Amino acid sequence: MTELDPHLLGTRAKAMIDALASISADPGRITRLFLTPEHRRAADLVGRWMAAAGLSVSEDGLGTVRGRLPGRGERGGANGARRLLIGSHLDTVIDAGAYDGTLGVIAGILAAEHVSRTRGAMTFGIDVLAFGDEEGSRFPFALGCSSAVAGAWDEGWLDARSFDGTSLRDALRRYGKEPTAAGQEAYDPDEAAAYVEVHIEQGPVLEAQGEALGIVTAIAAQSRLSVALTGEAGHAGTVPMALRRDALAAAAEISLALEAIAREGAADFTVGTVGRLAVSPGASNVVPGEVELSVDLRSQTDAVRDRALERFRNATAEIAARRSIGLAIETLHHQGATACDAGLQGRLAGAVEAGGGRPVRLPSGAGHDGQAMAGLCPIAMLFVRCKGGISHNPAEFASIEDMGQAVAALIRFVEGFEG
Amino acid sequence: MTELDPHLLGTRAKAMIDALASISADPGRITRLFLTPEHRRAADLVGRWMAAAGLSVSEDGLGTVRGRLPGRGERGGANGARRLLIGSHLDTVIDAGAYDGTLGVIAGILAAEHVSRTRGAMTFGIDVLAFGDEEGSRFPFALGCSSAVAGAWDEGWLDARSFDGTSLRDALRRYGKEPTAAGQEAYDPDEAAAYVEVHIEQGPVLEAQGEALGIVTAIAAQSRLSVALTGEAGHAGTVPMALRRDALAAAAEISLALEAIAREGAADFTVGTVGRLAVSPGASNVVPGEVELSVDLRSQTDAVRDRALERFRNATAEIAARRSIGLAIETLHHQGATACDAGLQGRLAGAVEAGGGRPVRLPSGAGHDGQAMAGLCPIAMLFVRCKGGISHNPAEFASIEDMGQAVAALIRFVEGFEG
Repeated sequence: MTELDPHLLGTRAKAMIDALASISADPGRITRLFLTPEHRRAADLVGRWMAAAGLSVSEDGLGTVRGRLPGRGERGGANGARRLLIGSHLDTVIDAGAYDGTLGVIAGILAAEHVSRTRGAMTFGIDVLAFGDEEGSRFPFALGCSSAVAGAWDEGWLDARSFDGTSLRDALRRYGKEPTAAGQEAYDPDEAAAYVEVHIEQGPVLEAQGEALGIVTAIAAQSRLSVALTGEAGHAGTVPMALRRDALAAAAEISLALEAIAREGAADFTVGTVGRLAVSPGASNVVPGEVELSVDLRSQTDAVRDRALERFRNATAEIAARRSIGLAIETLHHQGATACDAGLQGRLAGAVEAGGGRPVRLPSGAGHDGQAMAGLCPIAMLFVRCKGGISHNPAEFASIEDMGQAVAALIRFVEGFEG
Repeated sequence: MTELDPHLLGTRAKAMIDALASISADPGRITRLFLTPEHRRAADLVGRWMAAAGLSVSEDGLGTVRGRLPGRGERGGANGARRLLIGSHLDTVIDAGAYDGTLGVIAGILAAEHVSRTRGAMTFGIDVLAFGDEEGSRFPFALGCSSAVAGAWDEGWLDARSFDGTSLRDALRRYGKEPTAAGQEAYDPDEAAAYVEVHIEQGPVLEAQGEALGIVTAIAAQSRLSVALTGEAGHAGTVPMALRRDALAAAAEISLALEAIAREGAADFTVGTVGRLAVSPGASNVVPGEVELSVDLRSQTDAVRDRALERFRNATAEIAARRSIGLAIETLHHQGATACDAGLQGRLAGAVEAGGGRPVRLPSGAGHDGQAMAGLCPIAMLFVRCKGGISHNPAEFASIEDMGQAVAALIRFVEGFEG
């Protein structure tokens, strides 16, 4: 294996992170949405980096920048060879951190460059992919770019409208793309050997374990519900407790039931969150008549999530019935877990150990492009410790040392990959 | 005692209720705020009714309309005689019901008229008072008119500003009043024999008991708090349950603790309400970092309210400490209970029984002008059943029969009063 200098790799990554962070719709904070002028500038910068790294650069119909390193005996751009796909995304949430997504693209470029310079062509090709809509911050769908690359493009998304009313179709045209070409450049499954992604953890587990890097076991199964509770509004001073149908008291019980169920599933990385809760009429001297709350429930496996979800539904129904509260539950999202490939996990773990780390195994509670890519080929993810577990926030931070370790591990992984 | 026709009295009351309900700032709903053109029109109408009932009408420096029936041997307007004060208010909340306040003024006019026509002068004088700011819907204080009448006017209120920025001083000038005259026409405590008020219950107790009328034992002690909880925001998918400091989960526990404490005090009419709850950042995929919630706690006596409040504070502190949540409690309001005079309660009860009713005893959870008047003289309140306990709402309703019973009981009370 090559001698690697993690500090140098981390320093280079940090400079590239900073350069991308300066590309934003808003001065003073990072906001880079899909198919915006900021996306264009970030994609162009990444394309220049890829070219400088010796990759041949193209861009597909949805704006995914693809940097290609041919395999041995393969001419640039030729199809047919097995390819290792390395990627992440350039889009952000509104008022984002600098590391989410960008680190994975940069790690891919640095790894491909290193391998190309030190080893020349491998037996397999390498494609670095910079996706554009992992966050779903602009349109009411997410993972469109990676879905297209994986052959699961949904034509209906062209009619989806962003929060400012622009259709994806129009946004693509303004970005210089022909909408009918969207989703036409998927990989052939025989061509895609594997997909690997480096990403900040966005949670506190690695920090708590004192390790820089973690191996993702699966991207969690996730359900999102909207729970509407209808009681009866009344005067806070005049309606006796026994005659109340207080929608907020019911919501409080339901929130605690969700917490208790999630806590019991902690060994399976179950998490349950009420993040939004709206009270109506919402005056200090009125008993709440209506509450709408969001429920987000995730777990490492579908079975555990499904069991927790059933327990939650039963608990909620019992609470509502006991309190004579009207209950309506809407399922907004119900996604199965995406397993990371066991063999690839082992190879990533070996690469981490070769750098002196202890490869912590953990699921990803957050969604990632890998969920879409898993429809195409085996996937793996390498998590990087981030400070305080904070993400989607300007305070998001990963250290130069940790990023350097991540790039070094990715390089070792690529060097040991066998297509 | 006089033969009374409750149906006729109720029918007259209903016609007067409807006439006042048509005086509103907004077409299609009832909004009549203190010192507005609507207040002027309502006060003028009430003044005409008082005059037609044989009362001599005046208006004090804060717009309270006073209709006076002299006592025996007393010339109209003369001071020195003992007076029975009967009153309520003409102002409303925004988008109000038709009965809150108005019924009490109308009942006073009808009772004074009846007594004057059937009995001539009593040994005591009768003053019917139509106050203008019981609700506190326009300025950041309430009961200003009754406080002035009771000799507890606060000069500082002149500088208070309404939600549209107008000072009370300017609002008084526009209403045709000299601000320096405000609060200068209080009763002499020796002159005021008692204050009695008819009011819709604004709660469901009488309906649940199947009775038209109730005798108020006390106006509840009330505390209002603002509770601010500070945890730590985080990604709903990535922060394990054990590492969370979820401000909303803490708020849920605190809400249920308040409910449990209030339920245990049900025998003392204790009620506890979280009516407002604001979650930050309030996204379905983010663990709530901050919650601000309102607490409204009332009970029949100060001692019971104080004990419940202390238990609530202790429970909240325990919950916050156990969850490592920052806690700040602000007391917005802390008002003692106002007892209704036992002798007057007995006389009201007798008047109810004489009409065939069972006089239910209950505290008032809502505030009333009687709280201010209690600083001047003994007070009593007669509650009237309202449909579904609904108030401060266009659906507010009291039947003609129930209103007629209330006016009849008030007449009997006045006839039996002894100054």
